[in-house]
Amino acid sequence: MAKSTKSSALKQNDGVSQSEITNSASIDNIKSKRKAKLSPEALISQIKNGNITALSRAITLVESSNTKHLEQANAIIKGCLPFANKSIRIGITGVPGVGKSTFIEAFGMHLTSLGKKVAVLAVDPSSSLSKGSILGDKTRMEDLVKHDNAFIRPSPSGTSLGGVARKTRETIILCEAAGFDTILIETVGVGQSETAVHSMVDFFLLLKLAGAGDELQGIKRGIIEMADAIAINKADGENQKNAKLAKVEFNRALHLYPQKSSEWQPKVMLCSALKREGISELWELIQSFEAHTKANNHFENHRKAQSKFWLLQTIEDRLKSNFFDQPKIKKELETQLQLIEDDKTTPFVAAEYLLSLQS
Amino acid sequence: MAKSTKSSALKQNDGVSQSEITNSASIDNIKSKRKAKLSPEALISQIKNGNITALSRAITLVESSNTKHLEQANAIIKGCLPFANKSIRIGITGVPGVGKSTFIEAFGMHLTSLGKKVAVLAVDPSSSLSKGSILGDKTRMEDLVKHDNAFIRPSPSGTSLGGVARKTRETIILCEAAGFDTILIETVGVGQSETAVHSMVDFFLLLKLAGAGDELQGIKRGIIEMADAIAINKADGENQKNAKLAKVEFNRALHLYPQKSSEWQPKVMLCSALKREGISELWELIQSFEAHTKANNHFENHRKAQSKFWLLQTIEDRLKSNFFDQPKIKKELETQLQLIEDDKTTPFVAAEYLLSLQS
Repeated sequence: MAKSTKSSALKQNDGVSQSEITNSASIDNIKSKRKAKLSPEALISQIKNGNITALSRAITLVESSNTKHLEQANAIIKGCLPFANKSIRIGITGVPGVGKSTFIEAFGMHLTSLGKKVAVLAVDPSSSLSKGSILGDKTRMEDLVKHDNAFIRPSPSGTSLGGVARKTRETIILCEAAGFDTILIETVGVGQSETAVHSMVDFFLLLKLAGAGDELQGIKRGIIEMADAIAINKADGENQKNAKLAKVEFNRALHLYPQKSSEWQPKVMLCSALKREGISELWELIQSFEAHTKANNHFENHRKAQSKFWLLQTIEDRLKSNFFDQPKIKKELETQLQLIEDDKTTPFVAAEYLLSLQS
Repeated sequence: MAKSTKSSALKQNDGVSQSEITNSASIDNIKSKRKAKLSPEALISQIKNGNITALSRAITLVESSNTKHLEQANAIIKGCLPFANKSIRIGITGVPGVGKSTFIEAFGMHLTSLGKKVAVLAVDPSSSLSKGSILGDKTRMEDLVKHDNAFIRPSPSGTSLGGVARKTRETIILCEAAGFDTILIETVGVGQSETAVHSMVDFFLLLKLAGAGDELQGIKRGIIEMADAIAINKADGENQKNAKLAKVEFNRALHLYPQKSSEWQPKVMLCSALKREGISELWELIQSFEAHTKANNHFENHRKAQSKFWLLQTIEDRLKSNFFDQPKIKKELETQLQLIEDDKTTPFVAAEYLLSLQS
């Protein structure tokens, strides 16, 4: 497995890797693959027992675009719901090159060493073709990938952030029901994906490099405002001095924002994922965040507010797709856009007309 | 009129001020108020002749929530459309205290002195109760208010930015058909109102004060990124030195952004609206922007892209209100939100259920 490729590493976590097929212990697994599909009830029961194969299958149903699969997925999620929610959900973002994979490997291994069960998910709406373009470099996570108490799943495919986010949120519930108590959700920050991840996690961690000069970018895009902690990675060797300076700067930037509803003052930490330094301190910080927000009820209130937000967001997305996906509307929308192009209608008259066509 | 109150100043522009009633010249005006309402065709014809009373009435129809009025409004807009579009639309924003009213008075008077016809509109979704809370202090615009070639209309009322923005966009068309060639649209920047105004104008002007220390705020909220020019107001007397320093800083900030699709490099100017300094230079800058963007076709392409954006935005807003305003949905939404509160459903299952109720 040392030279495991991306795809076999991923497959292993789906419970059907090549190595397992040559392994007598997974004969049952192969049999269950071959026999008729399991009922939602059977999958729920297996998920509750921590069966990773069942978890992977349920996630595949959640990710499917087949209506029948979605019905099954909804039944499974409903069945898992009473066993979900008992976790801490941590969002992790940072620009490419910041060392996210190495960080998640180090952080995940630290958590498993404490007896935690760690699920690593990703939100990357751009990865529809290159499935798993983030969480992609599994060679940097090779210990975590093989660990019994870790489950790694690449981003669901899809070009719409709404769809990708929905699937990830439902996958969180399934992972929690399967006993994962620490959910890491990685995003590379394409478009609004950081906002989507922020709206599904308890704690939002921003990974930074010292002297990368993208501070303005982070402020501009509202990422720094969302952060509960900033970890300056690669704070080792000659980088240490710059990292300490960056820490002072980011601390100053964080203090310019008004207090969050969590009443938590975001912190800046130094770490080196490669040298596994600062990792346990970061986990201690997240634990103090959890204690703080559970004491003031923010933790629970925030989760409920997130769920209400997602209810409204899901309805809005569906109303739009129900309307715009009608062949008649698609055709007439083209016509109306051309009329706008030719200055022959206004946006509002065109909108009224299109709305009047609705079946 | 020197001590004209807010409301009489506004009414004058609606063509029915108290002072006019005591003025024999406006007897016709009063008669037309009393007689049966004009047909859309008659209003279109009068608007095209630059009749301000007809313009005000048409705007009142646009702003109405009465379905019959909206039908009339749509007919009028459609009739005005071939005569619209021949203007420059300028968005103006800045925090309270920056001197927006004084600036608009100075800028508007300069434009009228050049023979321009100036319409001043506002977008302020918060002003539903205190109609005209911006553009409110008419004592600071008393020359412009009285000028024959100026038309001032406060923000349409409404708590939804979508509704307020739609009304303002349609009002722009009516003003243009009435011969106004320079449209100023003021916003105080509540919520997303700057983004809404930015999406309906050709040129976006940000008013700033030297040393106000809200630079970060402007970067954070994406306002500086939207600006085609930043004018540092009150750059007079002892403020001049600070204003010059601020100019250097803002110039540096502006250069950190990638080039705009207009290929226009935003500029920083100094002005003093009170002393009427820097006003003509700013107008020259806007003229060079217009020449630049007309030469590279950005001006026209940008207007069409804006219209297409508003077509989609209007449909989305209507799909949402059509759904959420149904009494059955309102009631069941409450129930589902409570189930989320009690951890008895997921956002997605609740959304599916609510969508299934749709008539």
